[in-house]
Amino acid sequence: MQPIDALNLNADLGESFGAWSMGDDTAMLDVVASANIACGFHAGDPMVMRQTVCAALARGVSLGAHPAFPDLQGFGRRRMELSPQELAAMLIYQIGALQGLAAAEGGRVTHVKPHGALSNMACADAGLAEGVARAVRAVDRELILLAPAHSVLALAGERAGLRVALEVFADRAYQDDGQLVPRALPGAVLHGAAACWQQVQRMVEAQALVSVHGRRLPTAIDSVCVHGDGAEAVATARAVREGLAAAGVAVVPLPCLARLAG
Amino acid sequence: MQPIDALNLNADLGESFGAWSMGDDTAMLDVVASANIACGFHAGDPMVMRQTVCAALARGVSLGAHPAFPDLQGFGRRRMELSPQELAAMLIYQIGALQGLAAAEGGRVTHVKPHGALSNMACADAGLAEGVARAVRAVDRELILLAPAHSVLALAGERAGLRVALEVFADRAYQDDGQLVPRALPGAVLHGAAACWQQVQRMVEAQALVSVHGRRLPTAIDSVCVHGDGAEAVATARAVREGLAAAGVAVVPLPCLARLAG
Amino acid sequence: MQPIDALNLNADLGESFGAWSMGDDTAMLDVVASANIACGFHAGDPMVMRQTVCAALARGVSLGAHPAFPDLQGFGRRRMELSPQELAAMLIYQIGALQGLAAAEGGRVTHVKPHGALSNMACADAGLAEGVARAVRAVDRELILLAPAHSVLALAGERAGLRVALEVFADRAYQDDGQLVPRALPGAVLHGAAACWQQVQRMVEAQALVSVHGRRLPTAIDSVCVHGDGAEAVATARAVREGLAAAGVAVVPLPCLARLAG
Amino acid sequence: MQPIDALNLNADLGESFGAWSMGDDTAMLDVVASANIACGFHAGDPMVMRQTVCAALARGVSLGAHPAFPDLQGFGRRRMELSPQELAAMLIYQIGALQGLAAAEGGRVTHVKPHGALSNMACADAGLAEGVARAVRAVDRELILLAPAHSVLALAGERAGLRVALEVFADRAYQDDGQLVPRALPGAVLHGAAACWQQVQRMVEAQALVSVHGRRLPTAIDSVCVHGDGAEAVATARAVREGLAAAGVAVVPLPCLARLAG
Repeated sequence: MQPIDALNLNADLGESFGAWSMGDDTAMLDVVASANIACGFHAGDPMVMRQTVCAALARGVSLGAHPAFPDLQGFGRRRMELSPQELAAMLIYQIGALQGLAAAEGGRVTHVKPHGALSNMACADAGLAEGVARAVRAVDRELILLAPAHSVLALAGERAGLRVALEVFADRAYQDDGQLVPRALPGAVLHGAAACWQQVQRMVEAQALVSVHGRRLPTAIDSVCVHGDGAEAVATARAVREGLAAAGVAVVPLPCLARLAG
Repeated sequence: MQPIDALNLNADLGESFGAWSMGDDTAMLDVVASANIACGFHAGDPMVMRQTVCAALARGVSLGAHPAFPDLQGFGRRRMELSPQELAAMLIYQIGALQGLAAAEGGRVTHVKPHGALSNMACADAGLAEGVARAVRAVDRELILLAPAHSVLALAGERAGLRVALEVFADRAYQDDGQLVPRALPGAVLHGAAACWQQVQRMVEAQALVSVHGRRLPTAIDSVCVHGDGAEAVATARAVREGLAAAGVAVVPLPCLARLAG
Repeated sequence: MQPIDALNLNADLGESFGAWSMGDDTAMLDVVASANIACGFHAGDPMVMRQTVCAALARGVSLGAHPAFPDLQGFGRRRMELSPQELAAMLIYQIGALQGLAAAEGGRVTHVKPHGALSNMACADAGLAEGVARAVRAVDRELILLAPAHSVLALAGERAGLRVALEVFADRAYQDDGQLVPRALPGAVLHGAAACWQQVQRMVEAQALVSVHGRRLPTAIDSVCVHGDGAEAVATARAVREGLAAAGVAVVPLPCLARLAG
Repeated sequence: MQPIDALNLNADLGESFGAWSMGDDTAMLDVVASANIACGFHAGDPMVMRQTVCAALARGVSLGAHPAFPDLQGFGRRRMELSPQELAAMLIYQIGALQGLAAAEGGRVTHVKPHGALSNMACADAGLAEGVARAVRAVDRELILLAPAHSVLALAGERAGLRVALEVFADRAYQDDGQLVPRALPGAVLHGAAACWQQVQRMVEAQALVSVHGRRLPTAIDSVCVHGDGAEAVATARAVREGLAAAGVAVVPLPCLARLAG
């Protein structure tokens, strides 16, 4: 097992809307290497999207679409029942919209990562996951699907022939089966930059998810997700970035990872 | 002056939304050669857009984006004041979304035509027109801007270096200055397929707009717009198509017109 | 068991939106005695709501709020997961909005009937049903809850101390347990005005739900629901109304039913 | 001229939406005596509205509806062209929705104050102002219209027979004709709690608007508007409240003002 020498760092950004702002996108864009940009359905409006695209391109941060259920008021966190056809059309619409804004700034969308309830459902439901993977492929076969390691969604992406980037979470605890501890349970979310970096360090060294009980589930790791909002977000992202640097791990945009180029 | 031997016929389509349908798109797609497809802001949802794209591609009808103000309830007919930056981002978003859905079906968006109040305002306000033209160009320099003959918008498109297709209306009366008779005035809208065809015939033969007083304003004519909804829509479109055929004028998709290829 | 001498007839109306129309509300308002009026979340905009209120009041048709999930594109038919607090606030908002429009026309909202997926879920989930009942009561204790006979929602309304009007469906088949045959199954929907009237006649005479296998579940019946859209809607509503008249059953607005006055 | 011994203090509140928050409503509600609560069209969702109603009632702060154009993304600041009928229906819808939520908490809406572009337009356009006044009256003749002193809207309210509360702005400079200095011009907005209090003090003592050139336009003054968001909002509101207290002016909810009771 070769030690990991390059990783991606990603965050959900562009989640302001109209007069309302969320997160410190500029600070986060100085730290991460790939941005998952809200596409107007759960957050983000065309202006916010364009500004986020510009700010990302200016820093060499790669662009990803972060599509969601049509649920602005619920921030895309409400579970909804959509037909596979509806869902596919909505995903393509959102990805296309971001592609348009990226093209207008001379950039390209290189990955897709589902948001919120859509992501949670697609990480557990094989049919939904397949629908997501097919929709992404329909837009552009070169798009990378960014999905949690050991998720049904990651598997569906591979089956669909997509390049799949596997991510781990810096601030979320894992169960023994590789799924996240639900937010309703104590200890689901790690607090403090130091604790988050330690969790990342453990998983990167082990090349495995490490559960709250110490159980290891081996996996390739391509990317570390740090949250884009919350008071600790920037501090945590910096701690992870600095920790990786100190460990000799380069932080690179998703399309630059050797495993995904293969 | 060479007689016109090829023309485009366009209609606004894909204007259903969710459970509500509008117009007989299938019948219209059998008649027109280019479709202006609603992009979700005034009408059209991702499902409707995808179905319209499919139905158009199946008939060799070329795809155009029909972007609008964000005004579902007002069907994009309400005048709104948006900053140039907001408007540009919204246009690009809508065009990109349709491009995504077109790509997913193996097609391409080849033209853009603004809708409703946005179109009315951009046909009269040079600053707004320039903003529209630049936004279209920013997404893809190859996009054709479909604009009314003798409009400020057409001029702005040419100045921006876009290919501009000039359209005339089959069912709207013209003033002596080449602007449409406002809908609030009597005689603004022509009724009956025969009357519409006669108006088209007059303009195509004269290669000019012909006003209600018979005044001629010479112009290249690339396309004839027929309305997509209304009880008479399909009959009118068919009458125009048959009239053109009888006159030896081929009806072709926008990108196939020799003047635009130049 | 006294024979039924007065019944209510209700339909879902005001389901147009902006430029899109649905159903023949005027014709239906000439037949029914109570209108369930969409409140802007799944259909209906303020103009449509006001026009529907006016048209109902002009005919002595009583006004009901028909609140839904916030899902215009899905016509409120998509199941959504909302917190009880969110759902309560949304219901109150919608009922209040209709109350405002009713007051502006000199009328009053006298009943509430949940729409679509919200109704389906509240008819089966006791917690959700209780939330709906409490929200209705919070706005106005005098509001009548219109709910399907033998539903969890009807029970929750009674427990909350609301007056509950029990409805049966003219055009939907019942299972032996009193629940509707799911739309996905054959025979779920009755077709033809005659068949619908026969079903109503059977249930009114038996004072019971009558399942597809002929099983009877005794229940008070206050109202018959006929659908507001669909080509057969008006014909069916008229057949039911005429059948009831011929059987000596008066058709009255919900607040005029003796059982509810008690 | 009797010195003023009681005044109202009002602020625009409840302008959060879904996951996005705006302003420090709790702190403002501890200072003001009347709240203008967003009604879901430019800001505020049913949950936010209900929470704001609760927090206001708990502090004896009177409830006002703050209706706006349907423009969430533009925060109701975009000028829109709506027909008088559409606008009236939208206003009534929004006021009714807040009335419903107020009733559910045992409270009552006692005033209405238009928001953003709607307010700006209604303060200058007599036809629009009349439409607003009539819509408010249609819902409830007892509602107080809160309008800027010397505005066309205030006049329209009086003509419609409504009680009109006249407000002055703590942090906006006035022109010699009594209109606000447009935001685009230098000096339009006063900064610092002290400067705001001085402006209020001058106007209250003079019982007049005082322009940037010192010109006085006599007017009754019922209320002082302090802004609900912005970093200085709470400090400014407190300074005005304390200044009024030191000057022996009681701060009371709008319905408690003797002039409006008349």
